[in-house]
Amino acid sequence: MISAIVSGFTGAMGQKVLAMIQADAQLQLVGVYNPSVTDLTPATYDLAPTVQVFNQLDQITIGADVWLDFSTPSGAFANTQFAIEHGIRPVIGTSGMSEAQIAELQQLANQRHVGGIIAANFGVSAVLMMKFAQLAAKYFDHAEVVEYHHDDKRDAPSGTALNTAKLIYDAQGHDEPGNPREQDPLGARGGDYHGIKIHAIRLPGFVADEEAIFGGPGETLTIKQSTTDRASFMTGVRLALDAVMTRDELIVGLEQLI
Amino acid sequence: MISAIVSGFTGAMGQKVLAMIQADAQLQLVGVYNPSVTDLTPATYDLAPTVQVFNQLDQITIGADVWLDFSTPSGAFANTQFAIEHGIRPVIGTSGMSEAQIAELQQLANQRHVGGIIAANFGVSAVLMMKFAQLAAKYFDHAEVVEYHHDDKRDAPSGTALNTAKLIYDAQGHDEPGNPREQDPLGARGGDYHGIKIHAIRLPGFVADEEAIFGGPGETLTIKQSTTDRASFMTGVRLALDAVMTRDELIVGLEQLI
Amino acid sequence: MISAIVSGFTGAMGQKVLAMIQADAQLQLVGVYNPSVTDLTPATYDLAPTVQVFNQLDQITIGADVWLDFSTPSGAFANTQFAIEHGIRPVIGTSGMSEAQIAELQQLANQRHVGGIIAANFGVSAVLMMKFAQLAAKYFDHAEVVEYHHDDKRDAPSGTALNTAKLIYDAQGHDEPGNPREQDPLGARGGDYHGIKIHAIRLPGFVADEEAIFGGPGETLTIKQSTTDRASFMTGVRLALDAVMTRDELIVGLEQLI
Amino acid sequence: MISAIVSGFTGAMGQKVLAMIQADAQLQLVGVYNPSVTDLTPATYDLAPTVQVFNQLDQITIGADVWLDFSTPSGAFANTQFAIEHGIRPVIGTSGMSEAQIAELQQLANQRHVGGIIAANFGVSAVLMMKFAQLAAKYFDHAEVVEYHHDDKRDAPSGTALNTAKLIYDAQGHDEPGNPREQDPLGARGGDYHGIKIHAIRLPGFVADEEAIFGGPGETLTIKQSTTDRASFMTGVRLALDAVMTRDELIVGLEQLI
Repeated sequence: MISAIVSGFTGAMGQKVLAMIQADAQLQLVGVYNPSVTDLTPATYDLAPTVQVFNQLDQITIGADVWLDFSTPSGAFANTQFAIEHGIRPVIGTSGMSEAQIAELQQLANQRHVGGIIAANFGVSAVLMMKFAQLAAKYFDHAEVVEYHHDDKRDAPSGTALNTAKLIYDAQGHDEPGNPREQDPLGARGGDYHGIKIHAIRLPGFVADEEAIFGGPGETLTIKQSTTDRASFMTGVRLALDAVMTRDELIVGLEQLI
Repeated sequence: MISAIVSGFTGAMGQKVLAMIQADAQLQLVGVYNPSVTDLTPATYDLAPTVQVFNQLDQITIGADVWLDFSTPSGAFANTQFAIEHGIRPVIGTSGMSEAQIAELQQLANQRHVGGIIAANFGVSAVLMMKFAQLAAKYFDHAEVVEYHHDDKRDAPSGTALNTAKLIYDAQGHDEPGNPREQDPLGARGGDYHGIKIHAIRLPGFVADEEAIFGGPGETLTIKQSTTDRASFMTGVRLALDAVMTRDELIVGLEQLI
Repeated sequence: MISAIVSGFTGAMGQKVLAMIQADAQLQLVGVYNPSVTDLTPATYDLAPTVQVFNQLDQITIGADVWLDFSTPSGAFANTQFAIEHGIRPVIGTSGMSEAQIAELQQLANQRHVGGIIAANFGVSAVLMMKFAQLAAKYFDHAEVVEYHHDDKRDAPSGTALNTAKLIYDAQGHDEPGNPREQDPLGARGGDYHGIKIHAIRLPGFVADEEAIFGGPGETLTIKQSTTDRASFMTGVRLALDAVMTRDELIVGLEQLI
Repeated sequence: MISAIVSGFTGAMGQKVLAMIQADAQLQLVGVYNPSVTDLTPATYDLAPTVQVFNQLDQITIGADVWLDFSTPSGAFANTQFAIEHGIRPVIGTSGMSEAQIAELQQLANQRHVGGIIAANFGVSAVLMMKFAQLAAKYFDHAEVVEYHHDDKRDAPSGTALNTAKLIYDAQGHDEPGNPREQDPLGARGGDYHGIKIHAIRLPGFVADEEAIFGGPGETLTIKQSTTDRASFMTGVRLALDAVMTRDELIVGLEQLI
């Protein structure tokens, strides 16, 4: 039985985390935290009376095995620091911390032998896609990355697509050769990362799909992950919960566990 | 039984045309033509003794139902003109004629009531893909086109992809709305045709695939054609052979028959 | 401006219909109906005070342009009959009516010149997929159907997949030839409808995807629709709303409008 | 520079092997072997005069670094034995040897410290697909396998598809749970291997595609390899050539190198 405190419990991801915990007999919710709430009655949030609601960090004296944080960037560092100092293993999905902040937290966790994880993406299929792309890159000289997202997404390409191209480049060790005779007046060949082309498709109906395609003489290899519901992150969060219980350092990235 | 003369019979496509004719009991090869050959012995080309080999247009006096032309741009116009004037229905896959030349040939064919077809692409799946994209465009405000070709291809996007975008635009009747907040520093969003994005992927292992993707709230529709062997053109050529036998005008584009 | 009454307004689909109407300036919600509710206060259901809540058919005297029904099978016939008799054009997504009942309603609507539609599936991409499959079937001798659904789905294949196979068979006019030498000890070749193989995939992560694949020498054509959110049905409902305003008969199937 | 003898040089695969060697400056063809040929003149087979043509094993006294065998099952064992005994590293794509024969050859190669490989499939993308499927299986409880081949293929499912299901089952360690309420009157759910469903699609236009699909809450992961030309095997053969030069045992399966 793993006891948990959920930070950012009123947000969309926080609510999915609560649902996951409540559906899992191995997990027990003991507290929730959000500095913006004023009502501290559990029933207001459809929580059992045994769950304590907090709006100030220093009032959280109950202890727990894990600290699940899907809140806002502004509080991420302080929350994680608080958790480590109180021996509560942090599982952090909140973005916005600097590399320096993360390094400081890692040092603190190491000193106190507290296991934990900070991850930008808890999607298991996305992490596996990147991992397999990295492995495949050794056997193919040519790769392209295609990602498909809803038309409201502002940034192109997606962070996962760019990261996938980086992992492929690192594995290949050199720029991919282009076709010097190619003519592309419209820019249809897409974005370029060391010769690896990246294509971003934006259409309503997609949630988030990421695809790496490798080509060699007479064959192609495609690794594609498709997200239809952000609840998919809960698979990765669950994996992380088990992992941090047996670790004694703060790791960065779900790929470290897979 | 349809009797045929094949122009450009020594080329790659010409050879596939010969193979198709020989495998089809409804078709009979009576002559072949190539101004570059010097040896006029059928056996030299593994042809039956009844097949006549020509290297000059004005020596072709045998008559036939159809003239299949998969030769070189320089001879396309003269060949087609010759066929029409001799009442041999032209089925022309050779590219390179100007619009003016095509118009002149159409006028000639109409005068003489000779059926025929000039097509840049005899791929049935490609023509159907374009047709369906055009139909779907009425029901979706958002579409993107993706094409996949081998890495030796020089032009991007493919003619079929650009043509598909044009057909979608024509059917929608207005530019597709973009996302004004989109940030795309690498050009990953691809080529643009009136708001319809076009993505060209170039990898060894692909022959020629073309894809139109439509998106609406909660759903996508994908129409994809994939070519694994250029022999696929023979399906369209066969379709054209039957069609020209019952027509009395020169049509342009396989889509006119489908 | 189209005024609407929504029957089955408390259900999942009914709620999506309400959301669609509220987001569309061309549509106006005037009433909602559900025989199971006891509280007739609009505010209870987050409805504007101008919207009337009904729990008995004979109390609905307000009149409206359209009657949107996404309720339960038991009430579908009576509801549709009531709407037609009161000159309210029915748009019926509720299943469960017999062919005899539908025929009776069609006769009634024709007599009264009331436009309407009964459809099992308001997914535009699904209807287009079926339509395109039917058109493509004329040009290919070989087709297979693949559908992908979540692992809780009980019936295999899906109704849409079976219907797609039927449409392909109708268009081809004869059984597809099989491979007499084929050996398939595990039944991996899937279900069979007149030689058209149907494959049902059941995995968590899929919502509902349907795919028709056609093959010819050296080429394939794939038509695939993918549903990521059941809200996709609203596109088809919206299309139907406009259509029934200008019709004077009760049609069956969204494909009649596309 | 690796010197090579090619056994089965007149067959389709043998010809592709010759072409690969001739195009690679690191490889040198020194001999070819086929017990069925009677003409031993290199020019007859478009080979350089320095290449020796053999039709009897015991006349091959020239020595070489590697023995490439893509011949017929009847000679595979004797050929491989001959190669090992003469210190020529075997790269064997010829099928038909029994497990006992392979074990005997492995023992012989180990004794003599001769590197070599016997592989049923030299397709790099297929081997990677299987490897990734095996890795992904640890993170997903649900997987299905789909394979697409030309309609002349006799066996369903393909050996690769069945092998992929086996690897997934081995990695998961238990049967996948089914849906006890599922109704499948047509057998559309396909073949079954310990709960992993296998679907075989047979259509002209496909060469050989293999796909593993994994599903979890809200996400899917698809690993697909596609073969458009059997020349793809040469990538794996080339990989094997380098590998056997630095090994001193006979390995079985390209996956041992990847």
